[in-house]
Amino acid sequence: MRWAAFLWEGASGGARRRPGVSNLLLVVAAASSGGLVAYADSGSDAAVEKPQLPQRKKVVVLGTGWGGTTFLRNLDTRLYDVQVISPRNYFAFTPLLPSVTSGTVEPRSIVEPIRRVLEKKGEEIKFWEAECFKIDPQNKKIHCRSNLGTNLDGNGEFLVDYDYLVVAVGARVNTFNTPGVVENCHFLKEVEDAQKIRRSVMDCFERASLPFLDEEERRKNLHFVVVGGGPTGVEFAASLHDFVTEDLSKLYPSIQHLVKISLIEAADHILTMFDKRITNFAEDKFGRDGIDVKTGYKVVKVSKDAITMQNPGTGDISVPYGMAVWSTGIGTRPFIVEFMKQIGQGNRRVLATDEWLRVRECDGVYAIGDCATINQRRVMEDISEIFRVADKDKSGTLTVKEIQDVLDDISMRYPQLQLYLKSKQMNGIADLVRSAKGDAEKESVELNIEEFKKALSLVDSQVKFLPATAQVASQQGQYLARCFNKMKDAEEHPEGPIRIRGEGRHRFRPFRYRHLGQFAPLGGEQTAAQLPGDWISIGHSSQWLWYSVYATKQISWRTRMLVVSDWARRFIFGRDSSCI
Amino acid sequence: MRWAAFLWEGASGGARRRPGVSNLLLVVAAASSGGLVAYADSGSDAAVEKPQLPQRKKVVVLGTGWGGTTFLRNLDTRLYDVQVISPRNYFAFTPLLPSVTSGTVEPRSIVEPIRRVLEKKGEEIKFWEAECFKIDPQNKKIHCRSNLGTNLDGNGEFLVDYDYLVVAVGARVNTFNTPGVVENCHFLKEVEDAQKIRRSVMDCFERASLPFLDEEERRKNLHFVVVGGGPTGVEFAASLHDFVTEDLSKLYPSIQHLVKISLIEAADHILTMFDKRITNFAEDKFGRDGIDVKTGYKVVKVSKDAITMQNPGTGDISVPYGMAVWSTGIGTRPFIVEFMKQIGQGNRRVLATDEWLRVRECDGVYAIGDCATINQRRVMEDISEIFRVADKDKSGTLTVKEIQDVLDDISMRYPQLQLYLKSKQMNGIADLVRSAKGDAEKESVELNIEEFKKALSLVDSQVKFLPATAQVASQQGQYLARCFNKMKDAEEHPEGPIRIRGEGRHRFRPFRYRHLGQFAPLGGEQTAAQLPGDWISIGHSSQWLWYSVYATKQISWRTRMLVVSDWARRFIFGRDSSCI
Repeated sequence: MRWAAFLWEGASGGARRRPGVSNLLLVVAAASSGGLVAYADSGSDAAVEKPQLPQRKKVVVLGTGWGGTTFLRNLDTRLYDVQVISPRNYFAFTPLLPSVTSGTVEPRSIVEPIRRVLEKKGEEIKFWEAECFKIDPQNKKIHCRSNLGTNLDGNGEFLVDYDYLVVAVGARVNTFNTPGVVENCHFLKEVEDAQKIRRSVMDCFERASLPFLDEEERRKNLHFVVVGGGPTGVEFAASLHDFVTEDLSKLYPSIQHLVKISLIEAADHILTMFDKRITNFAEDKFGRDGIDVKTGYKVVKVSKDAITMQNPGTGDISVPYGMAVWSTGIGTRPFIVEFMKQIGQGNRRVLATDEWLRVRECDGVYAIGDCATINQRRVMEDISEIFRVADKDKSGTLTVKEIQDVLDDISMRYPQLQLYLKSKQMNGIADLVRSAKGDAEKESVELNIEEFKKALSLVDSQVKFLPATAQVASQQGQYLARCFNKMKDAEEHPEGPIRIRGEGRHRFRPFRYRHLGQFAPLGGEQTAAQLPGDWISIGHSSQWLWYSVYATKQISWRTRMLVVSDWARRFIFGRDSSCI
Repeated sequence: MRWAAFLWEGASGGARRRPGVSNLLLVVAAASSGGLVAYADSGSDAAVEKPQLPQRKKVVVLGTGWGGTTFLRNLDTRLYDVQVISPRNYFAFTPLLPSVTSGTVEPRSIVEPIRRVLEKKGEEIKFWEAECFKIDPQNKKIHCRSNLGTNLDGNGEFLVDYDYLVVAVGARVNTFNTPGVVENCHFLKEVEDAQKIRRSVMDCFERASLPFLDEEERRKNLHFVVVGGGPTGVEFAASLHDFVTEDLSKLYPSIQHLVKISLIEAADHILTMFDKRITNFAEDKFGRDGIDVKTGYKVVKVSKDAITMQNPGTGDISVPYGMAVWSTGIGTRPFIVEFMKQIGQGNRRVLATDEWLRVRECDGVYAIGDCATINQRRVMEDISEIFRVADKDKSGTLTVKEIQDVLDDISMRYPQLQLYLKSKQMNGIADLVRSAKGDAEKESVELNIEEFKKALSLVDSQVKFLPATAQVASQQGQYLARCFNKMKDAEEHPEGPIRIRGEGRHRFRPFRYRHLGQFAPLGGEQTAAQLPGDWISIGHSSQWLWYSVYATKQISWRTRMLVVSDWARRFIFGRDSSCI
């Protein structure tokens, strides 16, 4: 057996068959005799000879989504005592959720038990299927509650200590307080959601087939409404359309002409985060497919039978529907809102971290993925300090040389600087200095503090917020794991930029997101792809790129094989329409 | 498009692009104008030349299990106007349900939409996802209710006419009114049940892993109880044991030694319907595997935390448990009980049919599968008529020759006769006559009515009741479809035995069950098989026989491929333990 039996950390401090934790005493309260019995560990004599490693710090990871799982996979778990807490005991490959709604891919093909991920690392598995409902940063404790029934003592609540806490709990759905959404709409964030949608689509078809309905009732049941024209909503609408035309039309021949799919978007276009060419292509394709794209409409109410939406031109209109999927925006989980109040972020919408993913004013707490956002420090906030650091000879003015000497550090710390130069098509800082001075001739120009401020005054307009995507969460998890792995090294050999408001260097480079491209599958084996460097690719070739990227990115060989065989199954036999 | 659009039968009488139903007038009530508009079908001129087939009779099939689906697959649907009504829009390969509970096979791999089954026959699909709640045999109507939400007019209830009704609704679980079973136990009859069990097993493991539990609580959560030592219960226990030892022990190393599986059976042995050698082997194997087989215990109460059972020796004992599966016996569905009262079968436990699967005293109603049982007519009930029919020369005595002349017909009508001869190791009727006369010498012995009665007096002891298995239901469906297909032919050329209490011959041979063997998978790649002719096979070779039979018997190439690839996936990657 590769795994040593373990005891709960809080009770024993960790009993392992590993060097470092020896001389173990198990104190067992023998309830029957009322006395206390102490056992000496049988390996305690031998352990004296083993090297004494320091007690490992406790890392608690909240969440098993993209952020948490990538962090765990990359973390050197020998260095830390890791506990994972999540209401889901598995990782889900969420980009394939829209495929699950139509049965192109099976739910089990995109999930991997987190215990298996941990097992592969050869470490003891400390996973608790529970939800954190309160963080206590003063005492470095979190309060958790098991969601597995209520027949546990103490209502299933328990406390966990941490030295480092990695918050990767993701976001909740944002209904913008629209009445009736929670009661009547489906969401598409979890595997269970996708399963429910699939079943619900089939129910609509079966309901519309019932013998005693009039055509209006049938039409109502077969009206599928997608609220939100982002990538998820668009992909769901496309995949539902494929399901209907490729598979269900054969099985429900008498009602297939009554099916209608509507995509409602409050903005003027769908897929606004993509290039204009992709947006246009998608809108055209949906038009040809008969998907009714309603842009400029805001949903204001959802009742059991109808969706009410608003448009400045039309006023309120109500349309009957059979099933609705709400896929617009994300919100902050309630316990994170509470946490934010505790740490003085009560007036913010999303939990803020610094560029090293540390929650501000909160020792040892990190946040990654959709539950947090990086608060990129503005150049103008630090402009005097930057000037002071750069002005090595304390002359009160900066030469281009002086600026260039600190440029790497400044760019590392404030990535907006490089983006600004690029956006202005400047080749280097000299161009910026020249533009500030309005003097294109002199090379050895010097800037005083006011001129320096003027030169950089617009740089902060290039501060970018990261999208709430799997790619960002995953890169953050990977980055943070690397930081944790090199924590000791970096104390001695810091690799980050110069501290502007302090001495020495930061231990690590700040997190930097590298955009690897984004897909928008549009149905009918056509996909739009926005690749790095603003490359655009639309059509069948992108669909094959999509297949290969998504097969490659699978978390394990098992899920890879399953996803690929699901695709093959769909090509050969079509999608299943059983109501299970 | 292969499918013509169709209208609801009750409204139009059937509009099809097929010969036979032509000269169609669609009368559309144009609600907007308040008037009536009549359209002539465009094909009506051409149709004059087509042969005029009579209006097809309406066959309504209730249920999409083994009986109903096999009936539909074998029925010549060109001859009838077929409607199918079932709360499940799919057929499920139920013998693999125990495999689904542990994730050896995925639920979707064993289901096939009934619409796809109907589509393959090239006929119009008339399937209504609804439940029949009342049969009205006087008016030849059934009352149905859709179970798809309540936002339908009239509470989702509707009426369907039939000329022939095939009742194949299966059975419900029998709890024997044991208190707490419905609330606290899982059943294993439907695909949803198997999915719930799988999720519940994982929940028990996650619950038992929680940090704040004492060992007793952990043991309780990991105590899996199976009530009922029949093939389903035994297979579930075995497959759960495999799941725990092969997969979960690696992922839950600290608690795996606390797992306990108990199998509770009221009789003295498990698998009582199998040969004694199989029973012994199974009990021994389970003993070695650590599955606690408790025979002679009757469960009398199930509470949230404990199962109470009784044994004459021990009295009541209560054991705490984490999850319980109730798999003991089947009962009659409430609407069938009502129906039985209406047709004078109120004092019976199960709906009775004759040997042609017709519900007695109920014109045009057939019942197959677990919802009914065949009431084999006794020889002694008809003994005088049999004598009369056989006594061709009206001599008042029967010669062996006379008996032999009608023997084929008698054996066909009363299969117990052949079974009796076989059980007594008699070669033919002559032996029986001789034994009755106590006279082994004379060949041309004659029997009077009293002697004839004496000779056959014990024959009815060999009347066999059919087990409630997929095999029986499937053979009945096939048999009944053949009868329906040859209904017309058989009027003119009856192929059944002589009518004992009437003139001429029965139209069809009575249904005869052919036992093809039964499997009992016992876990660890070992299966016991009881094959025809009382052959017994136990071990790995039977497991491979099991694999090949179950792969072959799949309803479609799709499910066959999926089941086989599920098995392959399990061999390579093990079973998934995600809580979905």
